[in-house]
Amino acid sequence: MNPTFATPPTFLGTLRHDPAARFVVAGVPYDIGTTNRAGTRFGPAAIRGASRMLVDGVNPANWASPAALDIADIGDFEILLGDIGESLRRIEARATALAGHLVALGGDHTVTLPLLRALARRTGPLGLVHFDAHVDTWPDSFGQPMGHGSVFWHAIREGIVDPRRMVQVGIRSPVGRDVWDWTVGQGVTILPAEECHRIGVEGIVERIRRVAGDGATYLTFDIDAIDPSQAPGTGTPEIGGLWTWQAQAVLRRLGGIDWRGMDVVEVSPPYDTAEITALAAATFAFEYLSHFRPD
Amino acid sequence: MNPTFATPPTFLGTLRHDPAARFVVAGVPYDIGTTNRAGTRFGPAAIRGASRMLVDGVNPANWASPAALDIADIGDFEILLGDIGESLRRIEARATALAGHLVALGGDHTVTLPLLRALARRTGPLGLVHFDAHVDTWPDSFGQPMGHGSVFWHAIREGIVDPRRMVQVGIRSPVGRDVWDWTVGQGVTILPAEECHRIGVEGIVERIRRVAGDGATYLTFDIDAIDPSQAPGTGTPEIGGLWTWQAQAVLRRLGGIDWRGMDVVEVSPPYDTAEITALAAATFAFEYLSHFRPD
Amino acid sequence: MNPTFATPPTFLGTLRHDPAARFVVAGVPYDIGTTNRAGTRFGPAAIRGASRMLVDGVNPANWASPAALDIADIGDFEILLGDIGESLRRIEARATALAGHLVALGGDHTVTLPLLRALARRTGPLGLVHFDAHVDTWPDSFGQPMGHGSVFWHAIREGIVDPRRMVQVGIRSPVGRDVWDWTVGQGVTILPAEECHRIGVEGIVERIRRVAGDGATYLTFDIDAIDPSQAPGTGTPEIGGLWTWQAQAVLRRLGGIDWRGMDVVEVSPPYDTAEITALAAATFAFEYLSHFRPD
Amino acid sequence: MNPTFATPPTFLGTLRHDPAARFVVAGVPYDIGTTNRAGTRFGPAAIRGASRMLVDGVNPANWASPAALDIADIGDFEILLGDIGESLRRIEARATALAGHLVALGGDHTVTLPLLRALARRTGPLGLVHFDAHVDTWPDSFGQPMGHGSVFWHAIREGIVDPRRMVQVGIRSPVGRDVWDWTVGQGVTILPAEECHRIGVEGIVERIRRVAGDGATYLTFDIDAIDPSQAPGTGTPEIGGLWTWQAQAVLRRLGGIDWRGMDVVEVSPPYDTAEITALAAATFAFEYLSHFRPD
Amino acid sequence: MNPTFATPPTFLGTLRHDPAARFVVAGVPYDIGTTNRAGTRFGPAAIRGASRMLVDGVNPANWASPAALDIADIGDFEILLGDIGESLRRIEARATALAGHLVALGGDHTVTLPLLRALARRTGPLGLVHFDAHVDTWPDSFGQPMGHGSVFWHAIREGIVDPRRMVQVGIRSPVGRDVWDWTVGQGVTILPAEECHRIGVEGIVERIRRVAGDGATYLTFDIDAIDPSQAPGTGTPEIGGLWTWQAQAVLRRLGGIDWRGMDVVEVSPPYDTAEITALAAATFAFEYLSHFRPD
Amino acid sequence: MNPTFATPPTFLGTLRHDPAARFVVAGVPYDIGTTNRAGTRFGPAAIRGASRMLVDGVNPANWASPAALDIADIGDFEILLGDIGESLRRIEARATALAGHLVALGGDHTVTLPLLRALARRTGPLGLVHFDAHVDTWPDSFGQPMGHGSVFWHAIREGIVDPRRMVQVGIRSPVGRDVWDWTVGQGVTILPAEECHRIGVEGIVERIRRVAGDGATYLTFDIDAIDPSQAPGTGTPEIGGLWTWQAQAVLRRLGGIDWRGMDVVEVSPPYDTAEITALAAATFAFEYLSHFRPD
Repeated sequence: MNPTFATPPTFLGTLRHDPAARFVVAGVPYDIGTTNRAGTRFGPAAIRGASRMLVDGVNPANWASPAALDIADIGDFEILLGDIGESLRRIEARATALAGHLVALGGDHTVTLPLLRALARRTGPLGLVHFDAHVDTWPDSFGQPMGHGSVFWHAIREGIVDPRRMVQVGIRSPVGRDVWDWTVGQGVTILPAEECHRIGVEGIVERIRRVAGDGATYLTFDIDAIDPSQAPGTGTPEIGGLWTWQAQAVLRRLGGIDWRGMDVVEVSPPYDTAEITALAAATFAFEYLSHFRPD
Repeated sequence: MNPTFATPPTFLGTLRHDPAARFVVAGVPYDIGTTNRAGTRFGPAAIRGASRMLVDGVNPANWASPAALDIADIGDFEILLGDIGESLRRIEARATALAGHLVALGGDHTVTLPLLRALARRTGPLGLVHFDAHVDTWPDSFGQPMGHGSVFWHAIREGIVDPRRMVQVGIRSPVGRDVWDWTVGQGVTILPAEECHRIGVEGIVERIRRVAGDGATYLTFDIDAIDPSQAPGTGTPEIGGLWTWQAQAVLRRLGGIDWRGMDVVEVSPPYDTAEITALAAATFAFEYLSHFRPD
Repeated sequence: MNPTFATPPTFLGTLRHDPAARFVVAGVPYDIGTTNRAGTRFGPAAIRGASRMLVDGVNPANWASPAALDIADIGDFEILLGDIGESLRRIEARATALAGHLVALGGDHTVTLPLLRALARRTGPLGLVHFDAHVDTWPDSFGQPMGHGSVFWHAIREGIVDPRRMVQVGIRSPVGRDVWDWTVGQGVTILPAEECHRIGVEGIVERIRRVAGDGATYLTFDIDAIDPSQAPGTGTPEIGGLWTWQAQAVLRRLGGIDWRGMDVVEVSPPYDTAEITALAAATFAFEYLSHFRPD
Repeated sequence: MNPTFATPPTFLGTLRHDPAARFVVAGVPYDIGTTNRAGTRFGPAAIRGASRMLVDGVNPANWASPAALDIADIGDFEILLGDIGESLRRIEARATALAGHLVALGGDHTVTLPLLRALARRTGPLGLVHFDAHVDTWPDSFGQPMGHGSVFWHAIREGIVDPRRMVQVGIRSPVGRDVWDWTVGQGVTILPAEECHRIGVEGIVERIRRVAGDGATYLTFDIDAIDPSQAPGTGTPEIGGLWTWQAQAVLRRLGGIDWRGMDVVEVSPPYDTAEITALAAATFAFEYLSHFRPD
Repeated sequence: MNPTFATPPTFLGTLRHDPAARFVVAGVPYDIGTTNRAGTRFGPAAIRGASRMLVDGVNPANWASPAALDIADIGDFEILLGDIGESLRRIEARATALAGHLVALGGDHTVTLPLLRALARRTGPLGLVHFDAHVDTWPDSFGQPMGHGSVFWHAIREGIVDPRRMVQVGIRSPVGRDVWDWTVGQGVTILPAEECHRIGVEGIVERIRRVAGDGATYLTFDIDAIDPSQAPGTGTPEIGGLWTWQAQAVLRRLGGIDWRGMDVVEVSPPYDTAEITALAAATFAFEYLSHFRPD
Repeated sequence: MNPTFATPPTFLGTLRHDPAARFVVAGVPYDIGTTNRAGTRFGPAAIRGASRMLVDGVNPANWASPAALDIADIGDFEILLGDIGESLRRIEARATALAGHLVALGGDHTVTLPLLRALARRTGPLGLVHFDAHVDTWPDSFGQPMGHGSVFWHAIREGIVDPRRMVQVGIRSPVGRDVWDWTVGQGVTILPAEECHRIGVEGIVERIRRVAGDGATYLTFDIDAIDPSQAPGTGTPEIGGLWTWQAQAVLRRLGGIDWRGMDVVEVSPPYDTAEITALAAATFAFEYLSHFRPD
């Protein structure tokens, strides 16, 4: 048994690559929808590497053991260089073809859209627990209708997300007032970052549970929900974010929700320091998987 | 309209450079008064670059829109290489010549002295809201009477700051007891960082408001008030600092004070990571400006 | 007069922004055509910042003074986020509208295509002096026909470059043999990097002059022609590259060619160290401009 | 008197090197027991360098002045390259030979074992206040019985630590359930990081005091107890850690415990940013020493 | 087909992992024998990642295509944390068990010893082409007989290398005169770095060929043979090294030697910049493999 | 005996600090005269740290052993924060008080002036071998008469350097033509960097020897003479510089000159990568000292 530094660089060091596994981890190395700093194309590799800190032992918060699940790392989805439309089509096609529970590693936030399209085809409109610094409901991002700031504008309008079962946690960027009003008007619940700091872990959990309810639900975790000091490796940072310990504590208290898939996105390794952003992302996926037990 | 990464690198991307604007942003690339790591000469450029994350939309906390103010970025003040006295004279002269409300981007903390001198000539003794890890009331800094640790010793003795209307937030460095006692003896209110963590945002706001009162007041924000994890790009870090979310929440609650100018200083880009220090500084200036509305 | 660190961050610190100047510097912050590491969207700003080392005095090799030319920095061309086709159209439109001699700062190498299209409309097929590690004549780049590796495949086929007057200097990446043969078959002269090291500055100059001849000629300088130790800030590095001193000495000996424009591309600041890549790019533009004298 | 940047790079800038001093600071540049990233061999030098921020003045929390104690920095203990057993023997021998109160700067956590062995020979079984992200009671670390994750398994079994007087603060890594149960079964008190965030400074202090009691006690501070955003320079980071302000506030409230020695370990400068990890480590040693007054 | 950035992070992106392949690439993540900076435990992963720049197309110097060989990447050899002796035994055992032609990615230079032991068992005493800044024939390294500076002292004394067929290229570190004399006395040919710069590529090739002769020969490439500007990511740098272009040109001219295996060692990613050291190492392995053609 | 990483961080690890030694190494942590990036205040510590790579063994080029000389490291000279005049006075006073042969570690190039003043008082006008990218004979540096670009303007006018025995090696920055002409007019020999590349080591040596002649001579090595790829850690880089191997080979061939002292300046660690600049500086001092033998 090799030390952490020599564990295979797959998610949690798994040696299984079978797309038929119960849980499937896939990378989506796509980042041209980002409005500021690029680099999330290298996110999947960095998250996998950092996840090796979490291989051995159980989650001390709940004695779960994600590495012991029937879990495969199937590598990265294929994209087409520099082509938003075709890349999104390919991502959707690959996600659609999978039978297992998908945990996707971005890539910029744009990739959530084809993942939701693929999943909603099976589940109908999804509840959405959405950690982010940005509402991502702009009709376009600097003129680009499929930029990473427009994902949920599409998702809501396409009916693949149910906005009344959608909650945004950690929001704090400047935003157009029309965008904000449209979002709230659709029924989305927004938890600004400052409010999160005020109401604390229990308050956040209570709100998420109330909004998400009992239906099929998806978790999308934009790492920029976290404060840039804890997640410097990202493209569109905003100060005043959530703490990793808060996000971790919140995730641990979201058991019982009908989880159908998750992604963690916007990890940009060229801007990371000492792999801490990648480790945060890996740990959030680890916490998500801690809600499941071996069959 | 270009994406964030291609927005012009002025403060908030403004294309106005007219010194007659209502709000005037200027850089002060001076850093030879620093007692440890230099580099704040590159602070103004870094803060401007990072401010581009804040161009679009409004401040979601109060629907203010600093980019919509009559605001100009007039570039950097001139200094004389390696000469403290002459550089401070030039800074004061430039500041004196401006009619508008000045927001200055440092530079080390020494630059606040000529800025205060210029302003107090118009306003009389100023109240001072002073975020910092250090009291900056040493009579000299390792023998240098005009070092960055001696700014407020001068300002108080020159009568340009009213020490009974002066509050220091985030203080935590080792300090001579005589220096501390002199400062308190002058009437200055010191809020140590640990106390800030204990009393929270509302407590800090209450103290600041009580001290600052109704008179003309200046905001000087030394970025090392913030914890070094959130502001690594600075010269004299001390652990255990304020959080950006706290400082941001405090600033948002300081409306109604008779603000007459501000600076944000001690951002040293060579020590920054992923621009997070510069972004914090830019955001604090953005929050300050959010207290103003277009005429 | 401010020291270098406080000089305005335009190219050579110029304060002129008039698009009607004789020489026009423009940035092209576009990087989604890159096949490996992104980040050249931040190239123009970095090159401008580094160019400040070259403001004062004359070029000691030839007593030329680029900063004394009628030269303007008009800022960055507009692009459309994430959209190759539309971005290239906008770049071409802006370049077409300029009357002056254009020096463009990339951006990835894709941007050379619309620049050549704009220029050739006026000049007819251009000779091309092309510094690069890669031939950039792939019919597509991982499936993308407009990727940064396909620029000259298009330029040759569109007839805007005359391949018999085209010379590639510093080539060394792995390449498909069919791509190589097609390139040579078109009449292009390839100078591999190892050969450059063998024949030296004089040998390189002689070859370039022979190929370029007397016709209208364009200089495109992909910074990855330079060794990655001297230009780490780039997306697709290859070891064994040219030295900056060689490239500089070569450029200095290319006077008398009928130069019509130049670009320097593929500077990716997130991967740079101590600004050395940006400084190299700025210096190559400075050397190019040293071939011109004030009217 | 030189500025901070030119103060001699010993701990607190001391010029005393006499091993007979009342307080003795020593480095232990040993790091081959680490299971992930190495580099703590450079920890002692980095901590010394950063400690210079703390030389002047007194601790404003309690007016103590560690630099005014009879304190010597005796340099680094000798180790044998690549040899765990012999290195630990040499460390123990050097520690045994010292009469003074030892403050050791690691090195990885393995070094605590020989330091405890040396000290317990004089004091008998020690109480232990142990800050860490990991329990470090694995019987072996990836097969290595003397790895840095096995220190307290040995210390407890050797009887040099009294597990009923041992408290672990900040624990949060995945762990084998058998390891956890053995630790608790020995009588060790574990304070997980999330619980620390919940109960706050006063709660942590109360627990530590209750466990440590009146007997001779040692402080071992693994810097990875602190959140990786505040201590990126370490080998086995885990998100969700303690804050430096909390740890500092806790340490300040631990006066009156019968302190016999301390170490701060696992600072790995190659992964640090802007020296913030080293500064945190230096400050914790400074706070520890603030419990003592000159004779 | 994915772009470079999304190619699987195996050596040359190969998807074959079969230890029975004709060419076998293996990592050896071992670094505790290094006398200065550690970190080569992360070398294999970095070299693999960087090798993706070399996947597509052929080597333009000789039209070879290493990626088209029957080549497998079997992952990393197992080691025992912190234990030199046992780790070397495991490495030797794994190497012995392989039938194919091994290309090993270090790891520090110590790993060459077990690799040579395994190979020489089959071939008898090997010729050795040894690129390095250091002679590595110290009887011990700071007291450690199996440190990375003692590899060839052992290899020569064990008779697994024939010193008369051993040539050291790039040597330049300070060295004990006794060590130098012993090395030369054994029959080893030393080519100091300065001499390499003087005699050039052809001179180096001529010397290597003359020494290596016709017998079975091994190539060991310590990346610190290369100048630290081109290979900063290493533990024991010395200025004045070889250029990558020279080493590459030399390697290309060493066809016809009876090559039996190679390693490239001492790549330490924590000290690398922009992956250039890893890319150099990957390229040297690529050049080595370019001497072979598919069956 | 400790490994390199644990050797005491003095120059060549010496434990002697006696100012009466035959050779005296001193740091001069002064950097406010620099016209672009600061940071050389940390140069002395970095050079000392890197020098540990050179402790063991002899210089293989000439079997000299600097570490075996009667050599002391007396620490850093005192300066006055932010005050050019007083700092230069203190440096001169300290240098004047030393009887031994001084090797000074900068600091920016300004520090050479007081060092020359102190030395010339004893020796009369000195010959000067001056490695640099800049002529440093500007009458002022952006208005500052004592900036780092004006050192030799003063030295020549003060008569402490004999310009006919002064040679500048590696010159390449833009420069005012009047400055150039004045310098040459004084009798100084300028060897531009491009010419150095052309004439090679032997050519450079021949010129230096011819100019320096037999009189008392001083060596001042501005690290920016070296190419920025090999010396990124400096404040005013210029591309196209000398190679370390060339400078090292030149220094080795300058035996027999009547050396009276040396400095190596302008090493700015915040901009260095992997300590390569500091190592270059340390090695040049080591080569200089290799011209001397123990008494």
